[in-house]
Amino acid sequence: MAGGKLRVLPLGGLGEIGKNMTVLEYEDRILVVDVGLRFPTAEMVGIDLVLPDFAYLRERVDDIEGIVITHGHEDHLGALPWILRSLGAENAPPVYGRPLTMAMARSKLDEHRLRDIDVNDVQAGDAFDLGPFGVELIHMTHSIPDACAVAATTPLGTVLVTGDYKFDQTPVDGPAADLSRLAEMGAEGLLLLCGDSTNADRPGFSTSEALVGPKLEEVFLGRQGRIVVTCFASNIHRVQQVVDAAAALGRKVALVGRSMRKNVNIARSLGHIEVPEGIMIPPREIQDWPDHKLVIVSTGSQGEPLSALRRMAHRDHPQVELRDGDTVVFSATPIPGNERAVNETVDRLYHIGCDVITTRDAPIHASGHGYAEEIKLMLNLAKPRYVMPFHGDHKRIQLHARLAEAVGVEPEAIFRGENGLPLEIDGRGARFGARERAGMIFVDGVDIGDVTDVALRDRRMLSADGIFVVVATISEQDGSSVADPEVIFRGVPFTEEAEGLLDELRATVEASLARAAEEEIREIDLLQETLHDDLAEFVYERLKRRPMVLPVVVEV
Amino acid sequence: MAGGKLRVLPLGGLGEIGKNMTVLEYEDRILVVDVGLRFPTAEMVGIDLVLPDFAYLRERVDDIEGIVITHGHEDHLGALPWILRSLGAENAPPVYGRPLTMAMARSKLDEHRLRDIDVNDVQAGDAFDLGPFGVELIHMTHSIPDACAVAATTPLGTVLVTGDYKFDQTPVDGPAADLSRLAEMGAEGLLLLCGDSTNADRPGFSTSEALVGPKLEEVFLGRQGRIVVTCFASNIHRVQQVVDAAAALGRKVALVGRSMRKNVNIARSLGHIEVPEGIMIPPREIQDWPDHKLVIVSTGSQGEPLSALRRMAHRDHPQVELRDGDTVVFSATPIPGNERAVNETVDRLYHIGCDVITTRDAPIHASGHGYAEEIKLMLNLAKPRYVMPFHGDHKRIQLHARLAEAVGVEPEAIFRGENGLPLEIDGRGARFGARERAGMIFVDGVDIGDVTDVALRDRRMLSADGIFVVVATISEQDGSSVADPEVIFRGVPFTEEAEGLLDELRATVEASLARAAEEEIREIDLLQETLHDDLAEFVYERLKRRPMVLPVVVEV
Repeated sequence: MAGGKLRVLPLGGLGEIGKNMTVLEYEDRILVVDVGLRFPTAEMVGIDLVLPDFAYLRERVDDIEGIVITHGHEDHLGALPWILRSLGAENAPPVYGRPLTMAMARSKLDEHRLRDIDVNDVQAGDAFDLGPFGVELIHMTHSIPDACAVAATTPLGTVLVTGDYKFDQTPVDGPAADLSRLAEMGAEGLLLLCGDSTNADRPGFSTSEALVGPKLEEVFLGRQGRIVVTCFASNIHRVQQVVDAAAALGRKVALVGRSMRKNVNIARSLGHIEVPEGIMIPPREIQDWPDHKLVIVSTGSQGEPLSALRRMAHRDHPQVELRDGDTVVFSATPIPGNERAVNETVDRLYHIGCDVITTRDAPIHASGHGYAEEIKLMLNLAKPRYVMPFHGDHKRIQLHARLAEAVGVEPEAIFRGENGLPLEIDGRGARFGARERAGMIFVDGVDIGDVTDVALRDRRMLSADGIFVVVATISEQDGSSVADPEVIFRGVPFTEEAEGLLDELRATVEASLARAAEEEIREIDLLQETLHDDLAEFVYERLKRRPMVLPVVVEV
Repeated sequence: MAGGKLRVLPLGGLGEIGKNMTVLEYEDRILVVDVGLRFPTAEMVGIDLVLPDFAYLRERVDDIEGIVITHGHEDHLGALPWILRSLGAENAPPVYGRPLTMAMARSKLDEHRLRDIDVNDVQAGDAFDLGPFGVELIHMTHSIPDACAVAATTPLGTVLVTGDYKFDQTPVDGPAADLSRLAEMGAEGLLLLCGDSTNADRPGFSTSEALVGPKLEEVFLGRQGRIVVTCFASNIHRVQQVVDAAAALGRKVALVGRSMRKNVNIARSLGHIEVPEGIMIPPREIQDWPDHKLVIVSTGSQGEPLSALRRMAHRDHPQVELRDGDTVVFSATPIPGNERAVNETVDRLYHIGCDVITTRDAPIHASGHGYAEEIKLMLNLAKPRYVMPFHGDHKRIQLHARLAEAVGVEPEAIFRGENGLPLEIDGRGARFGARERAGMIFVDGVDIGDVTDVALRDRRMLSADGIFVVVATISEQDGSSVADPEVIFRGVPFTEEAEGLLDELRATVEASLARAAEEEIREIDLLQETLHDDLAEFVYERLKRRPMVLPVVVEV
């Protein structure tokens, strides 16, 4: 084995689902694979997006040779504008990926007004050098076209990052995954496999996407009302199959939802979806067609608050008013955490009188991630010396590790990693190195930054018990109270006793101020602290709740 | 058919899962069946419990003959203390139910210090009169012992409220549901069936509880570490089966979690659970036994924040420190909405190194609610003239209605109800009457009341974008500003520019006050409104967020 040291540092996607991002380092040069984002959980109040922490790369910005993106999903591509902005436009490294992925990247960068980024289309199978890394993109199948694995070769050997994949033997469009190239790499001797763990907990093989189309047609058959199909906007092959089923039954198709229209447009321009002449109608013409002549393809399969389907379910969509007799088909499963939002949407649709078909009723969805047997197949094809499961919470990473053991990988050669924990490989072997900074960055409207950690804690407190604001006005001369204290509260529940309580609160303020004056506390900060403690105690005594207490002392 | 008018008014449980409560009225006399609660959803920030609105009953308190509870689950029994308190202890109607249910009711009332309530044990099969209602409790099987249906007979006919049920042909303890009595009532002619819809969306029959025990033993077999089983604390027969499996394998059993210990104690005292001599050990002795000699039965199957299992998963339980090699068995499925909390708990357990077994891995849970074929069986046994599906969101009520049609009930005889919509039956037929008040009451710590609606809206706003408090001090004489405006914010994300922004904010306040003085706005409320509008506009302009803006004007 040649010299040098290779580091594989995951900055996201391990111990969690989402924000996948990996840093490959060889002799101080860096290659980044994927820069994904995550959507916030319910506890992250008021947060719009969650990004990986880019601090490690900001310090090493001059060492970055390039960023390679495996496919166009948000959890692999979505943080691209943010990292480029964070590194500074003038330092922005070049970006590489297959054409659809790069078209989606350009569209994102446009929205963020990042115009002078070097974005490069690469064909699967093409090899190119980025500093010490020989890079090759290997065609894979997934729930979006143009997915690929990334092979990065250094003098130490080759690392294969699979990205998201399934082994679909009959994909809807284009060839199956490049099994021969994977086998060839395995035969040549692969150093490290970083593989998708998303479905490590599902036994067997995933269903081929091609089996979904006929099932959709079966579901459509004989329906008298309109049919609304919702799926991920990036699931181009699914949309293709909906279009085909609609065409077969003589129905027109309308696309509803901004991201649906955008993605289908990009995919159409690149030839990933074929729409028969005259079948597509614009949303504004929906009302001009009889119910049994229409299929509406809509965003909202995850019950997203502002999505088209959610608005339809709330009878609040400008173009589509659902009614008794319409059918809504969920051609997607809820991502963990979205179950409630999806159930709520489904229930509202039932309330309107729609028939709702989900994957529990018919096999109208196929996962884009390989199941346990496919993960084993990947391991047996690629024959890696070392294995480091990627893309999964602790459970899935653990289960992926067990699958690797099952196909004969030595336990010592399997590394169950964590975000920020670099795997270091050199001539002597492989081991985890010292922990690097890795974490979450919250995006909140237009702002991004660690500051929001405090803001977030405050919001959680505010949302739990509300807030009391108490304004005391004191004389600059002697600290005596010169106006009645003002008490304002928001989000604090009160019953009849509120009036009396307010008087008592004011009395507490007066007493606290008097005591402070006696003790000659005049420094405003100290005064506010005293007030805070006295008030918080009183409020807890009386309400058995702990709202935020915010004392304001004004000197006049 | 005899005269008079019967009203069936659901105050909870229709169009939702939880807080089941029904008012039966005949000739102005009232019988209440079940008073359940619901747990809050994520949007109900800071709310502890959700209750039905009791307003309708408060106005009719003198007409209430009694409250009958079908079984001891929170969504049927949990609101009992609150309604009794809301009606006033001196007006409290008597409460009826089977012995375990009433034991659980007494325990709840004790906790709420409601001491002089008339709580009555009734045996299944016994008939008794409550005003114009002839009442009979009919033995049913469910996931808690002593479940029953309630038959209320008036001169117009009999209404059967099933409560929660399944037709378990081999229950773990006691007889199967009283099929003969149901058949007899059907033969005599049932007026109205109000049946459980919870599993109307599942085809076939539910699994018998008795099949779970052997599967649990299979899962336990050959494990070297400790075994933790989590299930609903009220699922007494499940606990029995865990105890039996432990005994068969020579393991001791420790019960962990307050509600688990409480419920098992009550059930033991009534003979619903049999524990072999010497098998139970107290939690403090857990560390004294070797790992392979222990089964721990724990609360927390829903990932509840303060539950024993959640604390174990966070390495924060005083008696149980989990480690590599331990096995955690989830003998329950997540209630819709709890998936995230459960997944998080599972993932933390994997991180610790535990093996986790869920219902996806082995058939170690059986639902307590009958599936579609059982709902049909109930309909065919009871042969009701009218059908009103109970206990379900809109989807399940719709699907239950379809099952009724499938077994031959006329569509006009099926009433898809809503909370607050009374079904009225008289000699001429059945129809929905005028809507009555029905809704949600939030319990927030010790308080209860409608006021919290506003508080909730405020909290949601606070939690989304935080709060700005601006204090302006003006002269009582001429309205001029006599001290620098104070600006305080919480939960608002700021980056470097904060300092400059605060200065601009203060300037905005000054400008707003000056303009108000010019326009001779002196009324404090008006002044605050002006300030609010000016500040909110400025903040949105600069931050593109809409925090709550709270202006306080102090006159000195």
